[in-house]
Amino acid sequence: MSFQSFDDPAGGSDHPARLSALRRQMGLEGLDGFIVPRADAHQGEYVADADARLAWLTGFTGSAGFAIVTPDRAGVFIDGRYRVQVKAQIDPAHFTPVPWPETRPSDWLRDALPEGGRLGFDPWLHTRQEIETLEKALADSGIGLIAVDRNPLDTVWTDRPAPPVGRAWAHDDAVAGETSADKRARLAAQLRDDGQAAALLTLPDSISWLLNIRGSDVPKNPVVQSFAVLSDDGHVALFADPAKFDDALRAHLGNQVAILHPEGLAPALLDLEGPVRIDSASAPEAAFRLLESAKTQIARATDPAILPKARKNAAELAGMRAAHLRDGVAMVRLLAWLDAQAPADLTEIDVVEKLEALRREAGITDISFDTICGAGPNGAIVHYRVTRATNRRLAAGEVLLIDSGGQYPDGTTDITRTVPLGDPLPDAVAPYTAVMRGMIAISRARFPKGVAGAHLDALARQYLWSQGLDYDHGTGHGVGAALCVHEGPARISRVSTLALEAGMILSNEPGYYREGAFGIRIENLIALTEAEAEPGRAMLGFETLTLCPIDRRLIDIAALSRDEIKWLDGYHAHVRDTLSPHLDGDTRRWLDQATQPLGTSSL
Amino acid sequence: MSFQSFDDPAGGSDHPARLSALRRQMGLEGLDGFIVPRADAHQGEYVADADARLAWLTGFTGSAGFAIVTPDRAGVFIDGRYRVQVKAQIDPAHFTPVPWPETRPSDWLRDALPEGGRLGFDPWLHTRQEIETLEKALADSGIGLIAVDRNPLDTVWTDRPAPPVGRAWAHDDAVAGETSADKRARLAAQLRDDGQAAALLTLPDSISWLLNIRGSDVPKNPVVQSFAVLSDDGHVALFADPAKFDDALRAHLGNQVAILHPEGLAPALLDLEGPVRIDSASAPEAAFRLLESAKTQIARATDPAILPKARKNAAELAGMRAAHLRDGVAMVRLLAWLDAQAPADLTEIDVVEKLEALRREAGITDISFDTICGAGPNGAIVHYRVTRATNRRLAAGEVLLIDSGGQYPDGTTDITRTVPLGDPLPDAVAPYTAVMRGMIAISRARFPKGVAGAHLDALARQYLWSQGLDYDHGTGHGVGAALCVHEGPARISRVSTLALEAGMILSNEPGYYREGAFGIRIENLIALTEAEAEPGRAMLGFETLTLCPIDRRLIDIAALSRDEIKWLDGYHAHVRDTLSPHLDGDTRRWLDQATQPLGTSSL
Repeated sequence: MSFQSFDDPAGGSDHPARLSALRRQMGLEGLDGFIVPRADAHQGEYVADADARLAWLTGFTGSAGFAIVTPDRAGVFIDGRYRVQVKAQIDPAHFTPVPWPETRPSDWLRDALPEGGRLGFDPWLHTRQEIETLEKALADSGIGLIAVDRNPLDTVWTDRPAPPVGRAWAHDDAVAGETSADKRARLAAQLRDDGQAAALLTLPDSISWLLNIRGSDVPKNPVVQSFAVLSDDGHVALFADPAKFDDALRAHLGNQVAILHPEGLAPALLDLEGPVRIDSASAPEAAFRLLESAKTQIARATDPAILPKARKNAAELAGMRAAHLRDGVAMVRLLAWLDAQAPADLTEIDVVEKLEALRREAGITDISFDTICGAGPNGAIVHYRVTRATNRRLAAGEVLLIDSGGQYPDGTTDITRTVPLGDPLPDAVAPYTAVMRGMIAISRARFPKGVAGAHLDALARQYLWSQGLDYDHGTGHGVGAALCVHEGPARISRVSTLALEAGMILSNEPGYYREGAFGIRIENLIALTEAEAEPGRAMLGFETLTLCPIDRRLIDIAALSRDEIKWLDGYHAHVRDTLSPHLDGDTRRWLDQATQPLGTSSL
Repeated sequence: MSFQSFDDPAGGSDHPARLSALRRQMGLEGLDGFIVPRADAHQGEYVADADARLAWLTGFTGSAGFAIVTPDRAGVFIDGRYRVQVKAQIDPAHFTPVPWPETRPSDWLRDALPEGGRLGFDPWLHTRQEIETLEKALADSGIGLIAVDRNPLDTVWTDRPAPPVGRAWAHDDAVAGETSADKRARLAAQLRDDGQAAALLTLPDSISWLLNIRGSDVPKNPVVQSFAVLSDDGHVALFADPAKFDDALRAHLGNQVAILHPEGLAPALLDLEGPVRIDSASAPEAAFRLLESAKTQIARATDPAILPKARKNAAELAGMRAAHLRDGVAMVRLLAWLDAQAPADLTEIDVVEKLEALRREAGITDISFDTICGAGPNGAIVHYRVTRATNRRLAAGEVLLIDSGGQYPDGTTDITRTVPLGDPLPDAVAPYTAVMRGMIAISRARFPKGVAGAHLDALARQYLWSQGLDYDHGTGHGVGAALCVHEGPARISRVSTLALEAGMILSNEPGYYREGAFGIRIENLIALTEAEAEPGRAMLGFETLTLCPIDRRLIDIAALSRDEIKWLDGYHAHVRDTLSPHLDGDTRRWLDQATQPLGTSSL
């Protein structure tokens, strides 16, 4: 079975019946409304089938959104990415798409609920910050927020799948670069410094990083779904289905990690000594309420694993480089293969399947997200995922955008390349060149310590902006080391004011999308490194991890500066030298040609 | 008398006696400490002689800082700009320089004052925010903050000059582009919308803008020192020495503006109907206390004139353009003259005097700040002001930095040019080119509405950063229209998150400083304009106001992109075409040569 499915994520036809059942249950429980979020208790990008409540109820399968159900309305709140998809997936006779955040849930609720209405929510599925925000917005509305003891949707979801018991395994200490014991000791010391007795961890990637474990509970993200309490002595109570842990893994975890059934979490929270550190941006409201009911002192602070996890150590960086070498081989084999085909002989799905096959040969354990492969106008749909229904045949004269990545035992990849099919499309040359110059500006950037993603974002956009163009997504996200391909806290975005630090890994992916015509995106992963500077200054720079040529056929060479040409030629020489020993003759010849210097024509 | 003085701002020798007198007075009033700020009640960049308390007491004449005096200590708190100057100006036997903000005043005070100590301050000379910050920092120290009724320094300053009664005059409505009545009506409507009965204005440039008046109470800033209360019906009570206002000006102000003696301010505040809008970032603590003592409702909010003043209208922009034409003529005459001299025949002061003479011919009413003219190593001192003691003879092979500006009846200018003397210094070429490319990147920038200075700052630094270099000042400050050369609230700086708006005027002045060797800065003024963008996007860009060639002799042409060359050649052609009709033959020939296209050598 392939990692990527091309099925239309259509939801079946019994959503109206499910909605009726939920409303009936709400009535029995005296609720005038109920919120059904897409999130599970771990607030991750992917949810297990058992947690796909929003899709079960409404048919909508996007990665963000929520529904609010009242006796006579069912609003499905979706952001700009999903305006089209939601219409294809929900039954408009029973569900109404609500543009969000344009429509504030509180305003919708004031209109939908009676004065004194009771709005239920499952406190395990919402963070404290979410609930606080909603409470504030509803403050003078007369609407009461009711944390339910048992989720009424779960009550009526009679054939709900069991929670995942995906295989878990040890993440090699050599690849992790630090034993779990050392990580736990380091974080425990931090807790003691901050006067905290324990920390509740609810993010599976934080826990998987801390314990040097990986798992397969959800697709694409190799995490073990779990909760954990880290004590200030470095001991961990790990709340996860014990069936996931074989003897080898138990030995790896050692005797300072107790594996406990998830049902033990709530009683354990009631028994905890405070102050307990807990992150209001990610931890469930329910956890706060349990601690508060036991009058335990709460220390609101960021999950203590987030920053240490983001700062990759030398072994993690080495693993990422090794994974990118194998991933580069797969990508180059794909691009060489693609160039050798007549475009019209292929569809988007053919390309995705070929790429997944090549990555399997390169040793992936999973893809790191569903490949976005958009030909012509499909490339302009930023979060496009090809299905059998949308699958487009390639055509000469079009532009093809391929954004993909793999999960390797030692690293996670995420790469986008945009290639012309047949003769380059003239209209794409100027924006392609601007996108590439922005990508190079970030790649080459050196900057003082203290600078944040908010300060660098414009470097990537400046050449597009000067043509009156832009793109409506961030420039880069954090990336985990053999973990989630989307990882906080640093990113390159106008709103990200966290200072960048050495060891962080980001994507660098400016783009341009012309609706109905084509999409362009060029993406490498980059790691933050110490950089040379004049005396008295401390600077950082980027090391590019991704190894794959950037298509030269859409470049307006005359628009480039000497330094940009030098960077591109140098990058291509590095790609060629690094990948060539691992390629067959034909692919090597393709790579030789694809990495030729641009020449000195613009000097 | 020239606008700029080259005297050493030495403070005389009676500072120890003044310090003793102040301490005696503090003792009489039961104070264990007293703060002497550089600021006056208007928090401006320049103070009148009557308000130069810090200089009178300590001898230190910098534009920022403060002293704290106790019975046995006198700390002079100065920031990084003034570490050298303060040592030359204060008597170390009696005063101690304190690096600030590295040393927090609260920490210094905890060390200097006894438990239960009484720290006096003059509530007219400190903003509410300052006092709140200090109160918070001293919260558990046992030190009490005492607002004095009468400043003990003023009591012992027996020969204190009278407050300034500089001539005030009408600022033409045609140049202002909006009558004061219209401005007052506009702001009054805003007050009514915000439910405020009145606003207290304490910033002279806000008041001068609102009333379309100008004055000469302090050097360089053509403002009328005053306070004002704007009522929600558009009437203004203007608290300023009535002697400044002749009949013509009174007629210009009209019968909705009452001119009242400044001593009437305090009683007027006690009588005001609330809510009174007042800006805690700029209004004196004393004003808050008066309103509070009368139990008047206070609405803390930004000075309502600040944003309207920053958004220049078409007439103000036209006035700025006209002023920049005349200023450009003066600058080009200077640079042509300079090129015709043997460097060794001139000193820094000769250049400053020549420039002021040329600007007087161009019609200035004042310079907009003291010219910074630094040759060789003096150019590396960012806030260098030449005195007879530091005056340096120019020398071939060095680099000369000239940062200067004029106050014209219709506009304010601020320009920096860096020129090689004799043969260009090879070491300066790479940083000069990087500085210029950054300046061009800002000049050419187009960007979506919503972008702030914090997001653009890196555009100016990117080429320096890529060489491991940087500069320790902001990239740009707001500039007034025939008002203060430093004007809030927008700027180009990593910390400025206010969205830029059309009509704002900023400086664009990246630089590079190599200690002991040379300084480079290139500065133009730029105005924000609406810019073209693809459908669905709204963008802004910059119009360059400054008209003066950028020296071509220090440019590494091969490092430039096609677009950069195009911008520079286009700018130079515009400068040549605009200024030439106003120049004599020799200067025109110099300009022709200085504005030659760079050529197509890099294409």
